Formats: sequence, structure tokens, C-alpha cells
Amino acid sequence: MYTLYYAPGSANLLVHLALLEIGAPHTLKRVDLDAGEQRSAAYLAINPNGVVPTLVIDGVPHGEAAALAMLLAERHPEAALAPAPASPLRADYLQWMFYLANSLQPLFRQWFYPGDHLPEGADTIRLAARAGIEKCWSKLDSHLAAHGPYLLGDTFGVVDLYTLMLMRWSRNMPRPATEWPQLAALAARLKARPSWKRVCDAEGLVEWA
Amino acid sequence: MYTLYYAPGSANLLVHLALLEIGAPHTLKRVDLDAGEQRSAAYLAINPNGVVPTLVIDGVPHGEAAALAMLLAERHPEAALAPAPASPLRADYLQWMFYLANSLQPLFRQWFYPGDHLPEGADTIRLAARAGIEKCWSKLDSHLAAHGPYLLGDTFGVVDLYTLMLMRWSRNMPRPATEWPQLAALAARLKARPSWKRVCDAEGLVEWA
Repeated sequence: MYTLYYAPGSANLLVHLALLEIGAPHTLKRVDLDAGEQRSAAYLAINPNGVVPTLVIDGVPHGEAAALAMLLAERHPEAALAPAPASPLRADYLQWMFYLANSLQPLFRQWFYPGDHLPEGADTIRLAARAGIEKCWSKLDSHLAAHGPYLLGDTFGVVDLYTLMLMRWSRNMPRPATEWPQLAALAARLKARPSWKRVCDAEGLVEWA
Repeated sequence: MYTLYYAPGSANLLVHLALLEIGAPHTLKRVDLDAGEQRSAAYLAINPNGVVPTLVIDGVPHGEAAALAMLLAERHPEAALAPAPASPLRADYLQWMFYLANSLQPLFRQWFYPGDHLPEGADTIRLAARAGIEKCWSKLDSHLAAHGPYLLGDTFGVVDLYTLMLMRWSRNMPRPATEWPQLAALAARLKARPSWKRVCDAEGLVEWA
């Protein structure tokens, strides 16, 4: 039913984790970013932005990792990965999904690809991205201290998987997310779930695995 | 039922437009950003990030403009501002909401507040933000040319209101969104809706009104 185009550890990680948590049968297709496969005509035909992930659902390709995670949670309500629309947690769920998508994830794009829009500004953009990312970790850590252990309190779900992926992305930064105690505890808790070992095996992740 | 904390033309515009399109009774409370009211203890108590909008729903404050627009669309399905979960357009809807939240809106934050994370890098960050914003406009314009007239084809909704708000934010940039023909047509179409005049009157908007 599902085919996930992925590159090890990229934004597909969130979607892949959601598929594993749901227990949804899926096929994996690796995209070789180093070889530039994401810019091939064949890949651009299913993902015009030339990025991973792409999730093919019943033959139709879709993009945007956070959107796909939300969609999978909706399509498989029995997995309880997101508060249902009528739930009192629904507003918090949407709020955190968009906080991560709007405030934190874009800074990682600038950290990893600082020269994307202005090559000569890369160093500056990278420094600013690091400062911004660390502010977000502080905010998330404070939130978890007050309202944890998960982002939505006692309720585990895709918001946590999203946070886990972003925390992994920080592993080689000067100050990785796990230097914040509540985030470290969240990472440990999530990495103890069977989905984590399975995703690392399937994508061949060795660092921070 | 709803109380919207706003500053004229800020990210509240999306939420305000959604309320007007729905026809949901609401109270407006202006936050004086110039006077720093967003950092007052009273405001931080309902919005710990110190930003607008805040939407109070049944006494509980919530933030993140895109999340609030999505939530309002869910709470008022009769207004048909978003494809229902079972709709074939659902994936596209989520995808565009997150594209705008993840790829476009964060660049506006950097355009308007370029020194937020690294004051000495402000000029560079602003230049890069402009380049990135223009790439997004090109992408949206191409999408509309192929699949318009709305972001989801024939189906108007919150994705368009979100785009409209962001287009307005570009009005004083060197190359505003309306220099792209499909975006100009979309803006004209949306500004012809009664919600636009009402939101401009209510927020006191005169530029690009």
C-alpha cells in the first residue's frame, strides 16, 4: 500500500518511524543523494522539489515529511499516534507540529545547506542557525520539564517522533539536543521503542543509533 | 466562543480571515507590539512565545497561526475550508500547509527580523531570505499555472488564505509576490471576497488593502 523513497537519516525518518509504529506494510526505495538521484527526471516526476521523502499512497506520490506523518496518523487512528479531531489535545498537537515545522526544522536546513540561497553568506547563516536551534531546544526542554514526559504530556505520538528525528540531526553540532536533560530523557525513552531499532536497521543508520 | 489577540497585519491575519470565512462570532483584542505588550507578563501567560496570534477557545489559549487555521477548519466543517480527512485532496492540503509553514513563512521571519539570532549577520540573512522567498513564489506560481486557480485546484480554503497573508507580507519587498502573474490573479480573486474587506476594516489595514 505504501512505498517510501528515503535517504538514510533524512526527513523520511519521521515518516518511516510512523509506518513502523503503525505496523503498516511498506516498501522502501533508497534515493542516492550523493549521486544526485533526487534531481533525476524519474525522481522529479514524483517529487518536483527533488527532496526526500516521497510517500506513494495507492499509486499517488506525496511529499512534506510532517504532512505525511500527520496523514498516516489520520489514516490509521487505531495506532493512536495523534489526538483525534475532537480531543482536547488536538490544538496542542497541531501547535507543536507547526512549531517544529516552522521554527525548528527550517533552521536545520540552513545549518546543513547554509549556502542554498546566498552562497557567500553561508558562514553567517550557519552561525545564526545554530543559535536559533539552541533557543528551540531550550524552549522544548522547558516545556517537557513542565508538561512532559512527551510533548503532549502522557500521550506519545508523531510529535515525539518528529522531535526525535530533529534531535538526531543535531548529534554532530557543537551542542547537541541531548545536552538538555529533558530532551536527553525523551530521546532515551523513544530510542527504547522497537520502532527505533527497526528504523536504524532498515535505513542502515549507525551514528546515534 | 473565540477571542483573537492580534496585531494589524501580523500572522493573526490568517486566523482572522478563517474566522470571518466561517462566520464564527469572535472578539478581537489588539496587542500593541510597538509598546512591547507581547512581552508583558499578562500576555506571556497566554502565549509563552510572546507572539501573535493567540486564539482563546472556550477559555483556553492556543498559538501557531497555521495550526489555528487548520483547527478552525476542523471545528467548522460546514465552512468547507479544508478537505475532510477522507478526501482525495487531504494529502495535498496537508502538504501545502506544511510547505508554507516550513519553506516560506520562516524566511519572512528572517526578512523582517534578520538579526534575531545573530545581530551582526542581519544584512546577509536578509539577502538570503529574499532570494529564498522569490524561489518559493516561482514555485507557487508554476503550481498555480498547472493546477490552479487555487492551491488545491478548484477548491478554495485555508491554504489560499495562508498564501494571501504571506503575499501581503511581501508588498514592500523589491519583488513582491504580485509580480508573478498567477499569484497576482490569486490575490485579486481572494481580495474580492467579503472576508478581505472585513479583515482590513477590523484590523485597520490600509496598505495592500
